[in-house]
Amino acid sequence: MKLKDFKSVKDRRVFIEKKLSLSLDNIGSFTIDEAKATSRNCENMIGAAQIPLGIAGPIKIKNLPAGEAGLKLKIKNYYVPLATTEGALIASVNRGCKAITESGGASVFVEEVGTTRGPVFKTEGLRQSLEFKTWLDQHFNDLNHQSKKTSSHINLRKIDTRVVGKYVYVRFYFDTEEAMGMNMVTIATTSINQFIESETGVRCLSVAGNFDIDKKPAWLNIISGRGRRVWAEAVIPQKVLKETLKTTATSIYDVWLGKCLLGSAISGSLGFNAHFANMISALFLATGQDLAHIVEGSAGITTTELIDSNLYISVYLPSLMVGTIGGGTTLATQKESLSILGIKGEKGDTDKLAKICAGVVLAGELSLLASLSEGSLAKAHAHLAQGKLLK
Amino acid sequence: MKLKDFKSVKDRRVFIEKKLSLSLDNIGSFTIDEAKATSRNCENMIGAAQIPLGIAGPIKIKNLPAGEAGLKLKIKNYYVPLATTEGALIASVNRGCKAITESGGASVFVEEVGTTRGPVFKTEGLRQSLEFKTWLDQHFNDLNHQSKKTSSHINLRKIDTRVVGKYVYVRFYFDTEEAMGMNMVTIATTSINQFIESETGVRCLSVAGNFDIDKKPAWLNIISGRGRRVWAEAVIPQKVLKETLKTTATSIYDVWLGKCLLGSAISGSLGFNAHFANMISALFLATGQDLAHIVEGSAGITTTELIDSNLYISVYLPSLMVGTIGGGTTLATQKESLSILGIKGEKGDTDKLAKICAGVVLAGELSLLASLSEGSLAKAHAHLAQGKLLK
Amino acid sequence: MKLKDFKSVKDRRVFIEKKLSLSLDNIGSFTIDEAKATSRNCENMIGAAQIPLGIAGPIKIKNLPAGEAGLKLKIKNYYVPLATTEGALIASVNRGCKAITESGGASVFVEEVGTTRGPVFKTEGLRQSLEFKTWLDQHFNDLNHQSKKTSSHINLRKIDTRVVGKYVYVRFYFDTEEAMGMNMVTIATTSINQFIESETGVRCLSVAGNFDIDKKPAWLNIISGRGRRVWAEAVIPQKVLKETLKTTATSIYDVWLGKCLLGSAISGSLGFNAHFANMISALFLATGQDLAHIVEGSAGITTTELIDSNLYISVYLPSLMVGTIGGGTTLATQKESLSILGIKGEKGDTDKLAKICAGVVLAGELSLLASLSEGSLAKAHAHLAQGKLLK
Amino acid sequence: MKLKDFKSVKDRRVFIEKKLSLSLDNIGSFTIDEAKATSRNCENMIGAAQIPLGIAGPIKIKNLPAGEAGLKLKIKNYYVPLATTEGALIASVNRGCKAITESGGASVFVEEVGTTRGPVFKTEGLRQSLEFKTWLDQHFNDLNHQSKKTSSHINLRKIDTRVVGKYVYVRFYFDTEEAMGMNMVTIATTSINQFIESETGVRCLSVAGNFDIDKKPAWLNIISGRGRRVWAEAVIPQKVLKETLKTTATSIYDVWLGKCLLGSAISGSLGFNAHFANMISALFLATGQDLAHIVEGSAGITTTELIDSNLYISVYLPSLMVGTIGGGTTLATQKESLSILGIKGEKGDTDKLAKICAGVVLAGELSLLASLSEGSLAKAHAHLAQGKLLK
Repeated sequence: MKLKDFKSVKDRRVFIEKKLSLSLDNIGSFTIDEAKATSRNCENMIGAAQIPLGIAGPIKIKNLPAGEAGLKLKIKNYYVPLATTEGALIASVNRGCKAITESGGASVFVEEVGTTRGPVFKTEGLRQSLEFKTWLDQHFNDLNHQSKKTSSHINLRKIDTRVVGKYVYVRFYFDTEEAMGMNMVTIATTSINQFIESETGVRCLSVAGNFDIDKKPAWLNIISGRGRRVWAEAVIPQKVLKETLKTTATSIYDVWLGKCLLGSAISGSLGFNAHFANMISALFLATGQDLAHIVEGSAGITTTELIDSNLYISVYLPSLMVGTIGGGTTLATQKESLSILGIKGEKGDTDKLAKICAGVVLAGELSLLASLSEGSLAKAHAHLAQGKLLK
Repeated sequence: MKLKDFKSVKDRRVFIEKKLSLSLDNIGSFTIDEAKATSRNCENMIGAAQIPLGIAGPIKIKNLPAGEAGLKLKIKNYYVPLATTEGALIASVNRGCKAITESGGASVFVEEVGTTRGPVFKTEGLRQSLEFKTWLDQHFNDLNHQSKKTSSHINLRKIDTRVVGKYVYVRFYFDTEEAMGMNMVTIATTSINQFIESETGVRCLSVAGNFDIDKKPAWLNIISGRGRRVWAEAVIPQKVLKETLKTTATSIYDVWLGKCLLGSAISGSLGFNAHFANMISALFLATGQDLAHIVEGSAGITTTELIDSNLYISVYLPSLMVGTIGGGTTLATQKESLSILGIKGEKGDTDKLAKICAGVVLAGELSLLASLSEGSLAKAHAHLAQGKLLK
Repeated sequence: MKLKDFKSVKDRRVFIEKKLSLSLDNIGSFTIDEAKATSRNCENMIGAAQIPLGIAGPIKIKNLPAGEAGLKLKIKNYYVPLATTEGALIASVNRGCKAITESGGASVFVEEVGTTRGPVFKTEGLRQSLEFKTWLDQHFNDLNHQSKKTSSHINLRKIDTRVVGKYVYVRFYFDTEEAMGMNMVTIATTSINQFIESETGVRCLSVAGNFDIDKKPAWLNIISGRGRRVWAEAVIPQKVLKETLKTTATSIYDVWLGKCLLGSAISGSLGFNAHFANMISALFLATGQDLAHIVEGSAGITTTELIDSNLYISVYLPSLMVGTIGGGTTLATQKESLSILGIKGEKGDTDKLAKICAGVVLAGELSLLASLSEGSLAKAHAHLAQGKLLK
Repeated sequence: MKLKDFKSVKDRRVFIEKKLSLSLDNIGSFTIDEAKATSRNCENMIGAAQIPLGIAGPIKIKNLPAGEAGLKLKIKNYYVPLATTEGALIASVNRGCKAITESGGASVFVEEVGTTRGPVFKTEGLRQSLEFKTWLDQHFNDLNHQSKKTSSHINLRKIDTRVVGKYVYVRFYFDTEEAMGMNMVTIATTSINQFIESETGVRCLSVAGNFDIDKKPAWLNIISGRGRRVWAEAVIPQKVLKETLKTTATSIYDVWLGKCLLGSAISGSLGFNAHFANMISALFLATGQDLAHIVEGSAGITTTELIDSNLYISVYLPSLMVGTIGGGTTLATQKESLSILGIKGEKGDTDKLAKICAGVVLAGELSLLASLSEGSLAKAHAHLAQGKLLK
């Protein structure tokens, strides 16, 4: 008997337990809908991994639409579910949320760029490559028509093409509504590619040619955006800096300049921030996002500025890949986490999640920079090493 | 009453449930040791996130030590626990494991580089910066002595220093035995910094100055390494390519060249691979690694080569951050996942985990490149969209 | 008396000669129009540097327009003036030209992207930044109107805006006709900025905010293009590879893959080529281009492919900054070099120069890859070390 | 008759003149030693390009050795020869030199890293790759012995090796005394490679495998250094800022932060500076350096800091490739330019040139940042456009 011969989660788990003389009781303890998960999320399932889930916040978020009509402010306080195994992270983010809320909240903004898929085509040479590029530009509507055949929830927003000798790379940007949409855009791009191949005779070498560029750190995603671009900012008064964050504006500013800017510059980094990836990881895990997109989420810039003795702080994430329907968002615990944020996968909910991400990342940046500026990071970790909770 | 006023996981969860009129039953269902987790992993804990966990493999791994004594081969087959919400991923990795095992296994190698922490110091100017750099080089043993005061499991391996005007960045590389060790190295570096400050009068601006560079995509980690460097390779015969992977060596090679090399080059990527981050994410989640280190794990290079009609394939990950004690590895389900790999956090176990990572990443790369080369990626996703299991 | 007190080239030179007890006879020997050069190219002029100038070629160039109307082929052979002090370079490029011409010529294509200037503005915060971005998009025609006031030879093609907290970066792309145009776009952007400041009240922090990004290596120029994008390709038959280049297609392909792709990937390079910068330097110097733009010209990709025993080779330069009027192109020797190429700064001449650049870069890549593949690079340099001419 | 049938510079020039019905009188007017230049610098020579050469300075340079023994100050004022066609550049650098000299001079420091050559070897697989790496480390002295056979002026300083599957990249760092040394290290590496191949049977794929990495922008050179690392700094008092630079410390600081740091960060740049490449180009051209190394010289970081109303400014160039013997330094006008700096290619002269480079780059950065901060850049260019000399 082999693993594939077993059809239920339990039978597979028991097979592994016997084969390896192990007990996997904890993995076997879960409340996930087995039928759904095995068909949609996880083949050869034997159970579940459990990750501790805590709450940071509440954090006050101020919605920031831009445009001629001016601002419509919609302010709300959110408790934020974060799943992590890294001690002190939630305590730190929580402190940041407190400081931001005491300061009047984080102003946030989101811009939808689109989920990208980037096939690569192979031509007979430069002449055909260039003609092919022109053809693509001229048939945008036809290509979108093909994509729409695969889903009523997809729309092709734009295409960007690069020719390198015989290789033609096409970056399709899709609107996928509330879904993160990688599966949707793969299916749509395959349909588009078949149309292209039959119309032009040019062969698609790969539906995914790394011009997407998916789950790899890359300047293209930072420069052109991917998924959503999000921003958040706050002004932290001296009083909050002193009482809640135990530091000063100048101290944070100095650390930011030396660490996030110059330190990243000499390291050849794409992330000019303190630790975006920590907040992104914990929020992605809690809310059922694709964890490999932590890579895209780790890029971006934190800025600070002194305003007298107060601190201006902002974050910019150019390539945040999130969704509120499909993928891991349908799982039981993840659905509950989303419900804590008031998110059900309805229209606008993914923008909302993106904005909360921005606010939480801002909170995490503020709190870590504050810790670093007054030298308490190691203290927190030393407490943890002794099994004490971070105060 | 506020969240912080509640002391038990249940009380906090109930507070949130009442406050937001929600039911969080699934989050409340877990087998994690509450006392340990709340003190070590997760503040403000209200429960746990569950992620489906499946098995890929077995994959045959051939240990590859290099050196004067020649090769000692130690071959073993591993079932690999992967936690993911991305449908088709485990099926795909599983197929790669099958192909590799049929081909005689993956040869793997690991090199320990060290866990880095990179404080930044601020001097009075270039003259002091350069003298400070010289002082650091001359006091290596003293610095290591300081670090050893903080733990019997730490050893300073080397330091790398960069001067930029008044800023001096120091990258400490530590051996942290079987731990991933970020907490350990933060505590050790803080101790070192206090010694440096008292001996030299030069002020440490931040214990973490992004010259580490931790959880941000960066060329420094790729060029100088971080954590562990790992490699894996296999030669896949034509028969396996045809029967198990439904493709040919030439087809895979063409996709690899167009996607992993040229496609990454035009995208300004640090990852010249197909999807390292997917395998790293699933294995990190299952085995209790810090998920923000997926960022470092996403960098690296896949190579392929035609050997007649057979395919040579290799992967290289320059900055793999893993551990087998501490952090998330102590949690119940993660501990069980590690036990599936025969890992208990004993001496050599972290190298072993790193090697298995390399093998699994190789399997994932092989399988996805095969799918792309014969156009089946979208088919898999279309099946998933219809709720069908990937065959 | 100080240097600035002297008004003629000779007087300044004599001042330096006396001051430092030197003879600068060679520097004093030049045919440049002193009045023009001192007012347009070089303040405090004391004479001229002489760089040896040689000829490579002829190289056959085939013009490759793309579009609906199909191809109009215009074929011509060019002698190419190259100024360099690097022995063996012209000999090598010359061999590449010979091989390409024997193979039927290089097909070349050019796309005008535009000369960029990227000012940075500072707002009061995210809300104003986003409103400012919207304002800019809505006033494109007004901005272009401002730019046109400064020159009848300028046209604003597009703008690209990035918001990072209080900072708003705007990348203006200008058509500057036959001029490289950095001075023109600086003047135009200053005029635009004054309009923007008076209309919006938002302050311009710097007319050049590195979002241009001028004379620094940067992914933005590669991804979005700068100046002109150019391509060239050729197919080299086995006979030419053997007789002229003393190598085989396979040997070149292997070196290309190991060097230009994988070697560049592990080095964190923006240049996936063999030595673009050499040809760009020599042609820029001969034809009066701004030498600091060698930086942009060094980026780009070479591809090769086996076609039976023949070799396909292509080059792609995404950010070539060239002009045929203004700047150094007005100087006597540079004007003569341009005349060798049949270039007078007339309409279309800058595209023509860009295409010749592409062809010459292709020749240089082909020849060096051939040398490396048969191990003759060091031989050439050893001959030079002995004062022998490269055969 | 073809070009290669002519043996003298004049005959070749006349051939081109007749062939193309042109007059190349200015190209034909030069004082370069024809015999030497045609055998060492320029094949198919037909004459010379003339570039206007001017003087900036004097600039006061303060030598800054670091070490236990403290500082030995050696201060000197230099007139700096700069060859350029870019109007306003020398005037701007000159102003920077004046401001620095008025402020007490630029403190400079140099560290010799070594000229690199990076061959790539191809093995049978990972096992051999790793054994090969070990072999190289164990035979360092033998390899150096081979290199010394090729020149008495070369010394192998260190090697750095990277394994990627079957590819082994080796970065040799050589001390080449006063020469820039690319030819020397190519010859030495070829000799080393022959030894390696005969001893190990591992085949060298290319003597230059882009792990050098020569004349391409790359993080490797920035992180590990290439040629020389140089630094310069100065403190500019408020009075000099006001009177000579027409600006304030705060204005310069604000432009620096928005342009050199944040502007470069969002552009994916390797250069966190204002315009290193301009000064490097002009000084390289005047002193006979290889112009393709402007690429390496364009990378690096400028820092500024407010000290009350004074400005601290520093530059760091991690990969400056310069020499004072061989190459273009032997040409008549270049030799004279070097003599202006008191450089004859004697021991220590290349370090001296590198230090002067650092000082001049500092002057150029200071002056441009000052111009940008008070909005005068466009004014300068507008004057030029009208044929007026920059005041």
